[in-house]
Amino acid sequence: MKLEKLETGFVLTHKGQVILRHSFDNPCLFLGAGSANFDMYRGNFDITDYVIERLPMRNFAVQEVDDKILITFSAEGQETIVFTAEETAEGRLKIAFTSKKPELNRFWLRIAATATEKVYGCGEQLTYFNLRGHNFPLWTSEPGVGRNKNTYITWQADVKDRAGGDYYNTNYPQPTYVSSDKYFAHLQTTAYADFDFRHDDFHELQAWEIPEYLLVDKEDSFADLVKNICGVFGNQPELPDWVLDGVILGIQGGTDITIEKINRAKEAGVKVAGAWCQDWQGIKMTSFGKRLQWDWQWNKELYPDLDTKIHELKKEGLRFLGYINPYVLEDFPLYNEAQEKGFLATKEDGSKYVVDFGEFYCGVVDFTNPEAFEWYKGVIKKNMIEFGLDGWMADFGEYLPTDCYLSNGKSAEIEHNNWPTRWAQCNHEAIEEAGKTADILFFMRAGYTGIQGYCHTLWGGDQCVNWNIDDGMPSVINAALSSGLMGNGIHHSDIGGYTTLHGMKRDRELFMRWAEFAAFTPIMRSHEGNRPADNHQFDSDDETLAHLAAMTRVFTHLKPYIKALSKENAETGMPAQRPLFMHFEDDAEAYEVLYEYLFGRDLLVAPVYEQGATTRKLYLPADEWVHVWSGETYTGGWVEVNAPIGQPPVFYRKNSADAALLSKIAEAADYKA
Amino acid sequence: MKLEKLETGFVLTHKGQVILRHSFDNPCLFLGAGSANFDMYRGNFDITDYVIERLPMRNFAVQEVDDKILITFSAEGQETIVFTAEETAEGRLKIAFTSKKPELNRFWLRIAATATEKVYGCGEQLTYFNLRGHNFPLWTSEPGVGRNKNTYITWQADVKDRAGGDYYNTNYPQPTYVSSDKYFAHLQTTAYADFDFRHDDFHELQAWEIPEYLLVDKEDSFADLVKNICGVFGNQPELPDWVLDGVILGIQGGTDITIEKINRAKEAGVKVAGAWCQDWQGIKMTSFGKRLQWDWQWNKELYPDLDTKIHELKKEGLRFLGYINPYVLEDFPLYNEAQEKGFLATKEDGSKYVVDFGEFYCGVVDFTNPEAFEWYKGVIKKNMIEFGLDGWMADFGEYLPTDCYLSNGKSAEIEHNNWPTRWAQCNHEAIEEAGKTADILFFMRAGYTGIQGYCHTLWGGDQCVNWNIDDGMPSVINAALSSGLMGNGIHHSDIGGYTTLHGMKRDRELFMRWAEFAAFTPIMRSHEGNRPADNHQFDSDDETLAHLAAMTRVFTHLKPYIKALSKENAETGMPAQRPLFMHFEDDAEAYEVLYEYLFGRDLLVAPVYEQGATTRKLYLPADEWVHVWSGETYTGGWVEVNAPIGQPPVFYRKNSADAALLSKIAEAADYKA
Repeated sequence: MKLEKLETGFVLTHKGQVILRHSFDNPCLFLGAGSANFDMYRGNFDITDYVIERLPMRNFAVQEVDDKILITFSAEGQETIVFTAEETAEGRLKIAFTSKKPELNRFWLRIAATATEKVYGCGEQLTYFNLRGHNFPLWTSEPGVGRNKNTYITWQADVKDRAGGDYYNTNYPQPTYVSSDKYFAHLQTTAYADFDFRHDDFHELQAWEIPEYLLVDKEDSFADLVKNICGVFGNQPELPDWVLDGVILGIQGGTDITIEKINRAKEAGVKVAGAWCQDWQGIKMTSFGKRLQWDWQWNKELYPDLDTKIHELKKEGLRFLGYINPYVLEDFPLYNEAQEKGFLATKEDGSKYVVDFGEFYCGVVDFTNPEAFEWYKGVIKKNMIEFGLDGWMADFGEYLPTDCYLSNGKSAEIEHNNWPTRWAQCNHEAIEEAGKTADILFFMRAGYTGIQGYCHTLWGGDQCVNWNIDDGMPSVINAALSSGLMGNGIHHSDIGGYTTLHGMKRDRELFMRWAEFAAFTPIMRSHEGNRPADNHQFDSDDETLAHLAAMTRVFTHLKPYIKALSKENAETGMPAQRPLFMHFEDDAEAYEVLYEYLFGRDLLVAPVYEQGATTRKLYLPADEWVHVWSGETYTGGWVEVNAPIGQPPVFYRKNSADAALLSKIAEAADYKA
Repeated sequence: MKLEKLETGFVLTHKGQVILRHSFDNPCLFLGAGSANFDMYRGNFDITDYVIERLPMRNFAVQEVDDKILITFSAEGQETIVFTAEETAEGRLKIAFTSKKPELNRFWLRIAATATEKVYGCGEQLTYFNLRGHNFPLWTSEPGVGRNKNTYITWQADVKDRAGGDYYNTNYPQPTYVSSDKYFAHLQTTAYADFDFRHDDFHELQAWEIPEYLLVDKEDSFADLVKNICGVFGNQPELPDWVLDGVILGIQGGTDITIEKINRAKEAGVKVAGAWCQDWQGIKMTSFGKRLQWDWQWNKELYPDLDTKIHELKKEGLRFLGYINPYVLEDFPLYNEAQEKGFLATKEDGSKYVVDFGEFYCGVVDFTNPEAFEWYKGVIKKNMIEFGLDGWMADFGEYLPTDCYLSNGKSAEIEHNNWPTRWAQCNHEAIEEAGKTADILFFMRAGYTGIQGYCHTLWGGDQCVNWNIDDGMPSVINAALSSGLMGNGIHHSDIGGYTTLHGMKRDRELFMRWAEFAAFTPIMRSHEGNRPADNHQFDSDDETLAHLAAMTRVFTHLKPYIKALSKENAETGMPAQRPLFMHFEDDAEAYEVLYEYLFGRDLLVAPVYEQGATTRKLYLPADEWVHVWSGETYTGGWVEVNAPIGQPPVFYRKNSADAALLSKIAEAADYKA
């Protein structure tokens, strides 16, 4: 790091990258006071802030102490904050913030930028790939249904459920971005934050507290950069081997139905890795559709003999996955136990606090209480792992109300964003302490800083069962690429999507296109959706089964390739799904091209994401690319290829070390629509 | 005025009312800098502000000079602004602002408030009556179609035309409010402003420049207060006598059709004051519907012989009204003349600037150029007054783009809000200089500070042809009451509403209910709407004509009463339509009750505003009220009365000096549904 003093300011650089540019007239820092209002309705937040004051920190003094640079800012003649900048042992630039004015609870820091710079990340972002030109409120929440105020779905969701959302809503925000200048910047805070990339000369990072520190590092390549990032946030473990043996079928309805459906799929040639039965603990009907009985134990009525069948299935090479979330349904055994033990978040006066999840009410397990945390880990160990589950969806994590009281005494406004990470940690430790990390898969939609080291894989959340850019199939690609750059290299989605409301119904074409896409991600898993009867399912007809069978043959054919990607991700943080610029950093198009990605170094995947399309236009960076279906070789640029159902646009790099394997994808598929 | 010094602050009172309460910890003033973006699409604005800094003005010094109190605020040890407080000759409190820091272009002043205080006004507000609990951006614009994001109409208008609007959008904003504490406060500025009434302890008045001054006064009664307000902003002239002789029928289509329609109405017993033909200068078809040919002169093709017929009609007691707005259609004679003379607003480089009004483009007459102003006045005098028009709709005024260049060198951002007043002044002076103020009626929807002294009457703008609270018939009542408190005591609306889009069609019931309401306002005028064929019209069937005839009989029966109201308004600023608290200031309900009003001192009107309703619940303040249809006497409180079509809930005060007249309303109506 280097600090250059100017007439009225300074320039702070790190590895040649200008990080802060400060002058009296254009200060890099503003502090202030605000009074926020958080209005939550079923995980959707209406958040407003009354900014009482926003003070430019124009005046500063610099002091060099040992290897540290101390910059003390002041306003109205009084010291307000001290920046302690240092290089960490790993060579990163860390600027710690020490507030001198506890009444100031708003922080805006400007990171120097150039007009042409592009930025990515901020957790898992669904609408935008390059985030420049927009601001991103960072607050874990429901991602919204529709996520675009111009769509009928969003409007209906807003009117009926206050649930439409907008481009920035996400289950997994993170105050970290990656720049096309090959640096990352991370703000260490769990408070509400907003990263604003709308300005030419700076990115403005806002937080509703004084953050602990800013962490920045720069590398010569994006590969080194993602490795560096994982050094900060942690690495996902390798995928259990069995996950690559086929699709995980989302099934509901009981033991018999599950086995029947698995058998039907297998008979049709589908490679099945297992069944994921989210209703293993029973169901509850609401107007939204079937909801699960949130009292995390095997439901003998709906799943008779599952305690023995689960082991029989395992012997046949079929895994059984379940479901859990961090809430317990009022008046059910787990709730009653937690309530008695004082393990639930309360109102400020200590009285009972339940959260509305849509026609039913739940207690929030207080993970800030170490005993409650251990107790819930115990529930997972006993009711899920010991029972024999091979994995589960660890759902939710975004609903911590800001007005509840937690045992660690911290404001729930500050804990809210941290909750997904606590929830991931709870799952991870339960599995690790059971010695099952290499064998059990759990997946989450919620996330925040630090989730990388705990959560085995993200799934893209609750997409609509449609083609919508903002909330349908295409949005998953942005989600995978953005979260991948943050160290979440194993990403997948519900094949076919989930949200089936306001007249939406999943059709066959969407299911098939989504399955094709999923075959080129690290995990294939289907979902029936919240209203299964309205949706086309994997077994709705023979054509769908035949198509799925082909896609699972491709997926299992790629097992060695994907296994290597999972290992690489676990070791180096290199995501399985990568933006094109990861390996083509000198290609300007690679920073902007949408709805295509590299699956590993050597596959380029451009899913068909438009209804009715039988061709797709896509961009190939300069290299020799072989179209896996026609065998035709392309050398780069914009091309349009035929893409009938069953032949998603996929190319392999001719010079790949895996060319022998990759050249046989079409053969493995063995499919004609 | 009185300034009391406190340990770290002061309290400034005027006539016993605390106006400013300042302390080091809770300053009454914030100054700052912002960078705004105005995005206009056909009169709808998307406005954002990046607040760079917002500085509390904690430190101050007081100096008393003669009868003035000078308060000098400072920040960072430098003087920022001087408040010069004085009592004007009329006894008002005036605080002039002298900026010492030209770089500060944002101003937030906190006026002391109490939690129970209510506020009204801010120009013409359509959605809310009591404005407390909301903030009101003050920027003249299209008011929006639907004005409620939860409605289908608004959503469609947003998606298709960016035109849905919200609760605060209005053609006529004004940075002035009236408090239930019987004071008014006015900020003298034409910049974008926002009055925020969401706080318990203060109202925060924001402006995007340093305003000239704050003006405040308090009175013992609301009657005195509105008189005081008109002393500041001006008084509307008295209504021409002929306006009270019947309905002004909105007709289009040419001379013959106009005369035919008048005759049909008269034969059905309708009292007709005149015809308002907005297409007198010809029409132009667009996808929105028929649009007018904006080249302000008689169109001989569409209105043959109008030059003689207009005088024949006048002899028969029938007036003829037209239409004009402050824009001239590209490539038509007036545009060409103005363009040649340099009378149009330009781009910054002096080149041609036309505004998109929806499939046609117009020049903006530059009213800041005195020659252009005189020229346009001349157009009105020659083409309209000399031609014989008895009045017109002086439409628009809200579309001044913020990026055009004006001859006075002022920023169009600052001139934008002032434009409606300049436009009103142009019309007023043309009429006055022709000596026709007592005989010609012009009406506007746009407004801003000062319009009161120029514009003869507001009309409520372009309501939807429906019952919607936010943008249908009921919204007109809030519009009349709020603008009435600002000195616009003569208000009316399009009978039946105007906006006919997105599947809306006006039905008979709505037309009839609107006509009933209009009979108890100072002007009855109908409108065919923008898609006349989709709407029920006054002559669509005999029942409608019979009902309208009855309502015009009521209206003309009330002529002496309404004439007195018009005179009272012209002399004292007492509005014709009044909130109940105007005469019942000790009745708490009178400050909150919605969709009813006093029409003068002695009529209480509660229009039926719900589709299908045949009764209405309404509130009567304590007095003796006689229901005009049944003759039954009520003494106050909430009551429900029968209200079939033709019998809108109207009561007269038994002790009224006009009881003889008012008791004969039913008799005058002589109507059975």
